[in-house]
Amino acid sequence: MRLVVVGAAGRMGRMLVRAAEEDPACRVVGAVEQPGSLALGEDAGLLAGVGRLSVPITDDPIAAFRSADGVIDFTAPAATRLFAEAAAQAGLVHVIGTTGLSDADLQALRSTAARARIVRSGNMSLGVNLLAGLVRKVARTLGEDWDVEILEMHHRMKVDAPSGTALLLGEAAAEGRGIELRERSVRSRDGHTGKRGAGDIGFATLRGGTVVGEHSVIFAGAGERIELAHRAEDRAIFARGAVKAALWAREKPPGFYSMADVLGLSEL
Amino acid sequence: MRLVVVGAAGRMGRMLVRAAEEDPACRVVGAVEQPGSLALGEDAGLLAGVGRLSVPITDDPIAAFRSADGVIDFTAPAATRLFAEAAAQAGLVHVIGTTGLSDADLQALRSTAARARIVRSGNMSLGVNLLAGLVRKVARTLGEDWDVEILEMHHRMKVDAPSGTALLLGEAAAEGRGIELRERSVRSRDGHTGKRGAGDIGFATLRGGTVVGEHSVIFAGAGERIELAHRAEDRAIFARGAVKAALWAREKPPGFYSMADVLGLSEL
Amino acid sequence: MRLVVVGAAGRMGRMLVRAAEEDPACRVVGAVEQPGSLALGEDAGLLAGVGRLSVPITDDPIAAFRSADGVIDFTAPAATRLFAEAAAQAGLVHVIGTTGLSDADLQALRSTAARARIVRSGNMSLGVNLLAGLVRKVARTLGEDWDVEILEMHHRMKVDAPSGTALLLGEAAAEGRGIELRERSVRSRDGHTGKRGAGDIGFATLRGGTVVGEHSVIFAGAGERIELAHRAEDRAIFARGAVKAALWAREKPPGFYSMADVLGLSEL
Amino acid sequence: MRLVVVGAAGRMGRMLVRAAEEDPACRVVGAVEQPGSLALGEDAGLLAGVGRLSVPITDDPIAAFRSADGVIDFTAPAATRLFAEAAAQAGLVHVIGTTGLSDADLQALRSTAARARIVRSGNMSLGVNLLAGLVRKVARTLGEDWDVEILEMHHRMKVDAPSGTALLLGEAAAEGRGIELRERSVRSRDGHTGKRGAGDIGFATLRGGTVVGEHSVIFAGAGERIELAHRAEDRAIFARGAVKAALWAREKPPGFYSMADVLGLSEL
Repeated sequence: MRLVVVGAAGRMGRMLVRAAEEDPACRVVGAVEQPGSLALGEDAGLLAGVGRLSVPITDDPIAAFRSADGVIDFTAPAATRLFAEAAAQAGLVHVIGTTGLSDADLQALRSTAARARIVRSGNMSLGVNLLAGLVRKVARTLGEDWDVEILEMHHRMKVDAPSGTALLLGEAAAEGRGIELRERSVRSRDGHTGKRGAGDIGFATLRGGTVVGEHSVIFAGAGERIELAHRAEDRAIFARGAVKAALWAREKPPGFYSMADVLGLSEL
Repeated sequence: MRLVVVGAAGRMGRMLVRAAEEDPACRVVGAVEQPGSLALGEDAGLLAGVGRLSVPITDDPIAAFRSADGVIDFTAPAATRLFAEAAAQAGLVHVIGTTGLSDADLQALRSTAARARIVRSGNMSLGVNLLAGLVRKVARTLGEDWDVEILEMHHRMKVDAPSGTALLLGEAAAEGRGIELRERSVRSRDGHTGKRGAGDIGFATLRGGTVVGEHSVIFAGAGERIELAHRAEDRAIFARGAVKAALWAREKPPGFYSMADVLGLSEL
Repeated sequence: MRLVVVGAAGRMGRMLVRAAEEDPACRVVGAVEQPGSLALGEDAGLLAGVGRLSVPITDDPIAAFRSADGVIDFTAPAATRLFAEAAAQAGLVHVIGTTGLSDADLQALRSTAARARIVRSGNMSLGVNLLAGLVRKVARTLGEDWDVEILEMHHRMKVDAPSGTALLLGEAAAEGRGIELRERSVRSRDGHTGKRGAGDIGFATLRGGTVVGEHSVIFAGAGERIELAHRAEDRAIFARGAVKAALWAREKPPGFYSMADVLGLSEL
Repeated sequence: MRLVVVGAAGRMGRMLVRAAEEDPACRVVGAVEQPGSLALGEDAGLLAGVGRLSVPITDDPIAAFRSADGVIDFTAPAATRLFAEAAAQAGLVHVIGTTGLSDADLQALRSTAARARIVRSGNMSLGVNLLAGLVRKVARTLGEDWDVEILEMHHRMKVDAPSGTALLLGEAAAEGRGIELRERSVRSRDGHTGKRGAGDIGFATLRGGTVVGEHSVIFAGAGERIELAHRAEDRAIFARGAVKAALWAREKPPGFYSMADVLGLSEL
């Protein structure tokens, strides 16, 4: 599969180039950066540390998309909306790992997906998406006498809490129970809290060191606990998940897909 | 639901009496021990610490079964086969937590189940059975590039390794992968082992203190891990699982059921 | 050692009677409850489930203390101050597990300890006290480039957060670093927190099910983590710790001791 | 501090160059490889990805040592013995992370250390060495009624079990107890093992995925557990530990030091 990486000179972009080149079913045929980027003209492979690919960084996505089958995009909301339009016109699969998308952004992307194949997720790792499916299933199976708690740890530089992935897991639990997360989430505890409310979904946040990302969902019942956890060791898993999503979507009809679709986890 | 507990004076039997009495949908109407037991004639509720139930311990199961809807049985293989026959004739649900059943025992029980409702499991906790369903599903979803490892810890008095529950989880992983556990299990590692075989299912065993039972199934991929774990805090969970199984089976046709059926996890 | 248990009819009191009777070096010679208690006159051993001890529950501590070597006390602050005075006059070791003591209470107890042997701790388990000593040592050894995070989980009925034990561990970390905990503790995180402050000591709280008490102290550095954890499986450990403290203090001069002294951990 | 890295073109050597350059108190002034290495003449900084250092790789350690204060060495036993002699003559600190040293090698190095400063450890991470000190202390404090179990997990390519670090932790526990590890270690469990022996030190090994290295030492008592764990996220910690060791040894008299000395943990 011929792939274009947009934002190819950034940290995540270089990881995406590496991941695409490491997959024997893919190769990188285009690499895009913003106009004015210092990386324009440099070789995307050399930048990514995988050797020369003879793919110079360009600021012309339209040209780059012309001879490609898919584009992988971990950039920013405004750019992603433009890339979605261009990818749809060129008939490319568009894999979106961009974060911070507003409801309006998502609405626009869904609309584009009427005529294009888009895969979008807030966390592209296979493990986290699989975990979310399990959490939904377990929350549906177990009643409210099993308390749900979500714990996450990230590195000291992370600026928000709980993590988007913790919230994604909380949404999965809420869906499984048929409730709204925002009505039942307990996002911190300090002081005299009173006893735990049945049906609450609790969050706890740890920050420290260089932890890439760890999430646990605990179902605590009377006399027993189930713990479902994910440990990310390496940010490369997000890049590999995006490449896998591109390959999967290649044979699909237009639609707005999630990583759960890619993994065949929708029925969980 | 009117329940008889067989082996009612033993440690597990008394837990079963407590669990049945704690469930508002159940009450204990009979309590059986072996002929010659010192507990014959004593009140089953007083023995179990739940107050007088006016249910004296008897050595006559046939009489006890007459006015009951179900029997719960964590005794021994030979006794369990006799109870299965008597329960079938009396039209009772038979919940079996007896361990050490041979293939011949299981064959006989299956045969009885053509005309009776039997629920049988090596681990009656909801949590472990749910975990096994998740493990089967995850093993099916993830390929052999995710290594499966099963870790368990039990108290210092346990005499066998790995635990029956660890093996049950290993079987679930093997089923998910469509392989035979016995052909791919690695039950210990010591010395120069060589690198791990793809597709192996590894076991590791910890023993110490008074741990009731903890099991983790680790799926270790490139750069990420999923860990599915169960912690038993209290042996009472096994008794509560048995009571739940009895209630579930009440409305079912004859059959040989597992805890996965009780939990509605068969489709996982 | 001849022990009196005060508050002997309550849940913790009965555990203390059991723990004292299980230790071959101790026996219970007195059992005290409040005037008006329904348990007055009943046998302390029968109440505790260890068989008849011929020790009736009394509301006269002075008489009970007369023929004893020590008193164990998990009651309430006002009662504990009275017992401290009576124990000092009778020359008894006084082991105090009472929680909620004010600074004034502690001041009074310290003053009494000028002429009596008092052991006082907010957590009588050996494990937690040992852990606190390790945390102090590690915090002293590692600089502020190792972030300290404290995680705890307790059952759903617990009404305050973080637990007293989590705070005790936080104090140990702060002491090791030579800082004031209250100036550097981060007791919850929600929303846009900004990046973690160097030198902060973070807390995270989980609540659910029937968890007796689990605490982890994480030291997260660049590329590695140390995790020091304690899992309480059974509340009886707090009772056994109190008995051990009584035996230890028997040969000591007057003083206000902690469990760290009992364990010989003071030098950590 | 002016450092030479030997084996500077290998994976660990390049990490050592990076770690030394990242420490403001150090700089790399020499980089040595074997005669015939393809890297001879290349710039050590470019190879390590830290930019040009103007330090060409050389095969002449004697010349490289002339203007240096220390040498860091994760090579092979025979080379390490030669480097030790050369470093001693040149008055350099010699930090040795080489594995597989025989008793004869260690004997020779100790002899050299009569007139030179050598720091040697099988695991240069601060965390693991701190953990070993804690394990020794806890094992000394707690009696044999606390069972010691050591769990480790490494990536699927590791060929031996238990890991050298797990054995190092086992040695620390055995030292704390005043016993010989080899007489009390239980390195695997499978089948009918009988109940756990008091005083045994058990090992359990997990293998899978890309795990850099995780070790837990569990002290399991009656009703409670203490768990002391280390998680390595990144192999760079071993390189940083070596640099720290070099800086520490700079002001020391001749001697054969361990990382416990470097960390000031010897008294634990």
